[in-house]
Amino acid sequence: MADDPTVDLNSDLGEGFGPWPMGDDEAMLDVVTSANVACGFHAGDPTQMRHMCRWAAERGIAIGAHVGYRDLAGFGRRFIEVKPDELAADVLYQLSALDGIARSAGSRVRYVKPHGALYNAIVHHEPQAAAVVEAVVSFDASLPVLCLRGSRFLALAEEAGLPVHHEAFADRAYNPDGTLVSRSEAGAVLTDATQVAERCVAMVRDGRVTAVEGTEIEVDAASICVHGDTPGATAMAVAIRDALTEAGVTLRSFADADG
Amino acid sequence: MADDPTVDLNSDLGEGFGPWPMGDDEAMLDVVTSANVACGFHAGDPTQMRHMCRWAAERGIAIGAHVGYRDLAGFGRRFIEVKPDELAADVLYQLSALDGIARSAGSRVRYVKPHGALYNAIVHHEPQAAAVVEAVVSFDASLPVLCLRGSRFLALAEEAGLPVHHEAFADRAYNPDGTLVSRSEAGAVLTDATQVAERCVAMVRDGRVTAVEGTEIEVDAASICVHGDTPGATAMAVAIRDALTEAGVTLRSFADADG
Amino acid sequence: MADDPTVDLNSDLGEGFGPWPMGDDEAMLDVVTSANVACGFHAGDPTQMRHMCRWAAERGIAIGAHVGYRDLAGFGRRFIEVKPDELAADVLYQLSALDGIARSAGSRVRYVKPHGALYNAIVHHEPQAAAVVEAVVSFDASLPVLCLRGSRFLALAEEAGLPVHHEAFADRAYNPDGTLVSRSEAGAVLTDATQVAERCVAMVRDGRVTAVEGTEIEVDAASICVHGDTPGATAMAVAIRDALTEAGVTLRSFADADG
Amino acid sequence: MADDPTVDLNSDLGEGFGPWPMGDDEAMLDVVTSANVACGFHAGDPTQMRHMCRWAAERGIAIGAHVGYRDLAGFGRRFIEVKPDELAADVLYQLSALDGIARSAGSRVRYVKPHGALYNAIVHHEPQAAAVVEAVVSFDASLPVLCLRGSRFLALAEEAGLPVHHEAFADRAYNPDGTLVSRSEAGAVLTDATQVAERCVAMVRDGRVTAVEGTEIEVDAASICVHGDTPGATAMAVAIRDALTEAGVTLRSFADADG
Repeated sequence: MADDPTVDLNSDLGEGFGPWPMGDDEAMLDVVTSANVACGFHAGDPTQMRHMCRWAAERGIAIGAHVGYRDLAGFGRRFIEVKPDELAADVLYQLSALDGIARSAGSRVRYVKPHGALYNAIVHHEPQAAAVVEAVVSFDASLPVLCLRGSRFLALAEEAGLPVHHEAFADRAYNPDGTLVSRSEAGAVLTDATQVAERCVAMVRDGRVTAVEGTEIEVDAASICVHGDTPGATAMAVAIRDALTEAGVTLRSFADADG
Repeated sequence: MADDPTVDLNSDLGEGFGPWPMGDDEAMLDVVTSANVACGFHAGDPTQMRHMCRWAAERGIAIGAHVGYRDLAGFGRRFIEVKPDELAADVLYQLSALDGIARSAGSRVRYVKPHGALYNAIVHHEPQAAAVVEAVVSFDASLPVLCLRGSRFLALAEEAGLPVHHEAFADRAYNPDGTLVSRSEAGAVLTDATQVAERCVAMVRDGRVTAVEGTEIEVDAASICVHGDTPGATAMAVAIRDALTEAGVTLRSFADADG
Repeated sequence: MADDPTVDLNSDLGEGFGPWPMGDDEAMLDVVTSANVACGFHAGDPTQMRHMCRWAAERGIAIGAHVGYRDLAGFGRRFIEVKPDELAADVLYQLSALDGIARSAGSRVRYVKPHGALYNAIVHHEPQAAAVVEAVVSFDASLPVLCLRGSRFLALAEEAGLPVHHEAFADRAYNPDGTLVSRSEAGAVLTDATQVAERCVAMVRDGRVTAVEGTEIEVDAASICVHGDTPGATAMAVAIRDALTEAGVTLRSFADADG
Repeated sequence: MADDPTVDLNSDLGEGFGPWPMGDDEAMLDVVTSANVACGFHAGDPTQMRHMCRWAAERGIAIGAHVGYRDLAGFGRRFIEVKPDELAADVLYQLSALDGIARSAGSRVRYVKPHGALYNAIVHHEPQAAAVVEAVVSFDASLPVLCLRGSRFLALAEEAGLPVHHEAFADRAYNPDGTLVSRSEAGAVLTDATQVAERCVAMVRDGRVTAVEGTEIEVDAASICVHGDTPGATAMAVAIRDALTEAGVTLRSFADADG
């Protein structure tokens, strides 16, 4: 990445529901290059989805389907033992709904990123991972997917011929083996915006980041996930974007590269 | 319609939810030429929608988006004072979800028919009628819509350039002015399958039907709505189909004619 | 009210859902004497209801069932043409759920106040007003209800033998006939905390308030409704409480007076 | 049980939702002595709950709260990793809602039986089992619970001082160790009404039943679970009731014995 470093910034957006907002979606859309838009199952409603798609289309930001379990009360953060065929239909439904709304706004769904407990489950849960892959393939066999490096989901997606991408996390500490430090441990989440921004620059420009024990580990993610659900998170996202831009990094959605 | 009479039979299908079935969808799909498929707001879930789309695609039956209010508990049969922009987004969401599922099954949504209380509301409720039109136009400005003759919805849809079609009702009594006899009156719903089938033949072959006071009224509907939510209704639908076929009427979806 | 003026302050609380908070419930519970707790149909979930009941019980604040239409997406702010028997069952369900949770926290439901579009509907919608009355009577024929003066709901409740109370609104402008200035008109909602607090003192101490055209109108409400769904609203509620207390007004729930 | 054999017949009832019925609740209420009534989270709605409570109260049948995960689409048959405090609140909410409705019908909730995936989970899932116990105790520390013999739930409930009861299954094959034959194995579910009725008589009169390999195993259940969700199931339930009555067995709710 020496000469022309490029990276994508993705964030979970449109996660309000009905009368309840979450985060400052419009502010975040001025920072990120890919918007993971909630599709109504764990968050998001048709009106908010339409606003998100219009705003993203105006700014040329890639729209991703942020698909989750059907669980508004739990925000999609609780594992549900859904049967694979039902999960596939649920994902296809969400993906289709967002794509139609995006098209009516002059854009379309450019990638799929699973949300919350579904994201975590399909790192290892073979039948559910296969179900999500099946849904995406049945919708569009060339649609990119974004998830965790080493996940069963990305392995199965790759086997199925889908373009696959993995992401790094701006504000999470890494173990020396490249996995994330568990949120239950102290220091798992970084809160200093300057430090986080510097780490992001190192990830992109140098392809590495410092793990918790001081060792350097390699990072080659196509996208960095930044959070947008708190005011402080927005400021951090701005700091990350500015630091990357100043370091000569071009911000561009990974989905643009897939054509 | 003298030489080559043609008509469409449409029915509300896929109206179960989760563990709860409604009617015999597969049997009805062997009778009708257009399937109004529930999209998850008043009935229908992604798994059932996927089954419906696969079955309809296999049989070459036109898939219509049967869009309704967000009201599972009330089955979309209760008027809701939804704001127009929210209603438009709700309709666009449902339509998009079904279309994506239909496409993944090798078909697509061929028309839109509102359901229940929404259907009744937009006969006269101008802002909601306009909202449904706006949603359909924003999705596909050439997508046909099906509703009640004389409704504000069809008038606004026509103004907006959408292909419009109205439907007759197989088992409902008509007033001399062409409106339906209210369900609260005796004799509003016809239950004799032979009589109903004969009336359908008269509607299509002769372009007329006998109203409650014995006068003949003109009928020029592109489609006849048959019910499928009871075992008896399925038998009646079969009787209608058979009588029409024996009378030399070709059954074909109105959506096929729109190309 | 010359010698020992007393009033209740009520507020709509517990109106978050799942991951989405609304307002600062704990701060408001330090201000009000009656908490209208959402029961899960327009807002509120069991976990939040349990927190609300525990907090209210600790502070000795009266818990009211804030019952609404089954409409999370619309926050209960959209009229729904629910059949009376279904509405009665929905109200009974919500009321029962909150009462059980309140009892497990050492308190109980002390009154019922309808929410949003239901509140507005039963000002004049006779069948729905009667349905809410029927539900409350079937639960506890001595449970007080709180609503708008002159509403059909309060009239029917009184006929049914329920203790009835009406409320004044701290931050709303009044017409000379005692009705509220419509929100669609300029000046309908007052935003100056000092002015609002002074008006509340006048309402309680003098039994009157200045209407929009400068005339004085009589007010004899048992309770004043204050809003809690914005940070600014919390500050205004504090100003109201402090002004009333300084003016020698005792704050006590109207439900305490009913015993 | 030699001299005066007594047993309870329990069945899952009120499992429709909105427009969708399930089983023939009224017919089953003429057979069973305990009705496990769905509380709106996996099935059941307020209107149906009110009907069930009225019908059960008229017949003197014990009403049980059939509490489940919040999952209408999955009918509560999918494990959900709900946090214990949220599960406890969900159970308390359901239990409270049904109890209030039952009381308004002149009865009350007499016991709690978990449903579906929750029932299965708390056989071994310690935190969820403890959460359900906590909810029941906080509602009424003397309320009986009904579940599977040997479950962690019943063990924890007993420790907490709740009256505990376990049930046998009328139409399920048993392994020699007393566990149920898995539904995935042939012969797991018995369909011959005469055979099933005879087994029920043997369970109650002799305290034993024949396991799949022909050995006799002991059964001392306070209640026998019969299914009511199909027409055939209703006939089987009638056969069971009649066979037990003819064999001199008194049918009486286990909840009556707890007083």
